[in-house]
Amino acid sequence: MEDVRLERIREIIEPLRVEAGTAVVLERDFDPGNTGDMFDKKDSKRLLTTGVEMLDYYQSRLAAQDTYGVLLVLQALDAGGKDSTIRHVMSGVNPQGVVVHGFGVPSSEELDHDYLWRYQQKLPARGQIGIFNRSHYEEVVVVRVHPEILEGEQLPAEARGDGIWERRYRQINDWERFLVENGFPVAKVFLNLSKEEQRRRFLRRIDFPEKNWKFKARDVRERAHWDEYQIAFSEMLSATSTEHAPWYVIPADHKWFMRVAVAAVLVDTLAKIDPQYPTVDDEARKELAASKQELEAQAPDGVAADPVAEPAGKE
Amino acid sequence: MEDVRLERIREIIEPLRVEAGTAVVLERDFDPGNTGDMFDKKDSKRLLTTGVEMLDYYQSRLAAQDTYGVLLVLQALDAGGKDSTIRHVMSGVNPQGVVVHGFGVPSSEELDHDYLWRYQQKLPARGQIGIFNRSHYEEVVVVRVHPEILEGEQLPAEARGDGIWERRYRQINDWERFLVENGFPVAKVFLNLSKEEQRRRFLRRIDFPEKNWKFKARDVRERAHWDEYQIAFSEMLSATSTEHAPWYVIPADHKWFMRVAVAAVLVDTLAKIDPQYPTVDDEARKELAASKQELEAQAPDGVAADPVAEPAGKE
Repeated sequence: MEDVRLERIREIIEPLRVEAGTAVVLERDFDPGNTGDMFDKKDSKRLLTTGVEMLDYYQSRLAAQDTYGVLLVLQALDAGGKDSTIRHVMSGVNPQGVVVHGFGVPSSEELDHDYLWRYQQKLPARGQIGIFNRSHYEEVVVVRVHPEILEGEQLPAEARGDGIWERRYRQINDWERFLVENGFPVAKVFLNLSKEEQRRRFLRRIDFPEKNWKFKARDVRERAHWDEYQIAFSEMLSATSTEHAPWYVIPADHKWFMRVAVAAVLVDTLAKIDPQYPTVDDEARKELAASKQELEAQAPDGVAADPVAEPAGKE
Repeated sequence: MEDVRLERIREIIEPLRVEAGTAVVLERDFDPGNTGDMFDKKDSKRLLTTGVEMLDYYQSRLAAQDTYGVLLVLQALDAGGKDSTIRHVMSGVNPQGVVVHGFGVPSSEELDHDYLWRYQQKLPARGQIGIFNRSHYEEVVVVRVHPEILEGEQLPAEARGDGIWERRYRQINDWERFLVENGFPVAKVFLNLSKEEQRRRFLRRIDFPEKNWKFKARDVRERAHWDEYQIAFSEMLSATSTEHAPWYVIPADHKWFMRVAVAAVLVDTLAKIDPQYPTVDDEARKELAASKQELEAQAPDGVAADPVAEPAGKE
């Protein structure tokens, strides 16, 4: 793929990356209303279309090469826009190569394993783009804001208590490095919504009858923990944005900006592994020639030996 | 959804359905080059767009209602167009609600279970559209054409030998009825390619370098079994097209017709269950009102109590 579009994409996402080893504070360092100065709302539709085309380009090569798999981790506060982002960024990409998993309340089988187990079960295979709609990061965010969750789990003493979050950050970093080193790049985006925009989105869900079913009173109660979530997310982002699997904090108050930025992060991740269609070696080339001869001999009477005019699958 | 489009869709697919209890012979009863008289190539792009929009309409309701799950079974001969059909029909539908599974050579864990087990593991959940790219029908088609496959499996005497295909047809019918009765409608399409069009598509894969990697000499060797496959598919279609889970034989020589027809079968399946957004009961309505009051009280100074102008998620 030509470099000019990729350069542009890197210019968009670079300011959104959390530098490895830096302590960030969400409300101080990242403005949820930020839309940069690279493009405006008018341009965003065209840019998103370009982004989806690039994703499609890379996805078909990723699947054909079957060597790498890509994991996109999506985290956000409620109403941050995870669902609509997946919808807008990934519609138009071959659904055969994209696997989305949402993670809700864990089952008793899942609780019977370590806290990363259920996420490992749902990792993308080689050739796939996997999307985690919520992820293992819930285990250091929601569980941190609601430590009572841990009381329901059968944990040995050494897996709870003092230093649990630092230990989990390290374990998650180690696991993600393992994935990256074994051919599974990990891209992580946090959709950073402002408290006021969350309030407005909740009100819309209440006021529009067709959105009512999406609304849960629990979500409003959870807003009471806003500051604790900001702290939990800030510390998590600081501790787990690494060289091998960096976090991007995507301003989420403007959906048009957010969607382009998320597409850009994913395109950049794919461009770095730059998957290629498999090449054909000499032996395979001989086989192709023999097969061609055999197929041409099967032409019905009156049909030209070589009826080929255009690539299959295009018409 | 208004009835006129659904009626049109039913007119397209009705002639393609295999009547339950009818013995069909593929090459006698179904023309792979047929394109009906309902629309032509010029109309097909617009019709496919309409079909995808209708799928999107139903998929969002299916996911929200979370009561039914839909299984689409795709079978075809090599180069029948399964992959490109999935790509064209399902791109544009929310990838979060669509799960595609391909089935290759079974693993040793899969072989250690009954022949339906690995397909059961990959069934769609409630709220999902699941697509089987190849399916449990391989177990009565490819295994029938190559019975030596069974020799590699540890089957008890009563699960092999005389009457195996009739027994498997009945078992598959029973299983699918179980699925349908438990809220998982099953739509089945067979992409019916002509031997000459398969030859042309193979030649294109050989002649166009970027298609080479898709070509396998084994596929040409498999053409030698063409007549056996026609018999195996014909008997399978005759025995397993049921009232609860009918087969549709889709003419596959013209991709523009095939794609519209496959979309139509899936739309029809969804329209029959007609999923709805969940409704809000009186108690939930009271909760909504209380939440609204609470959120409005949180408005920052100078912000109107009700800032709602348009539904969230549309901008």
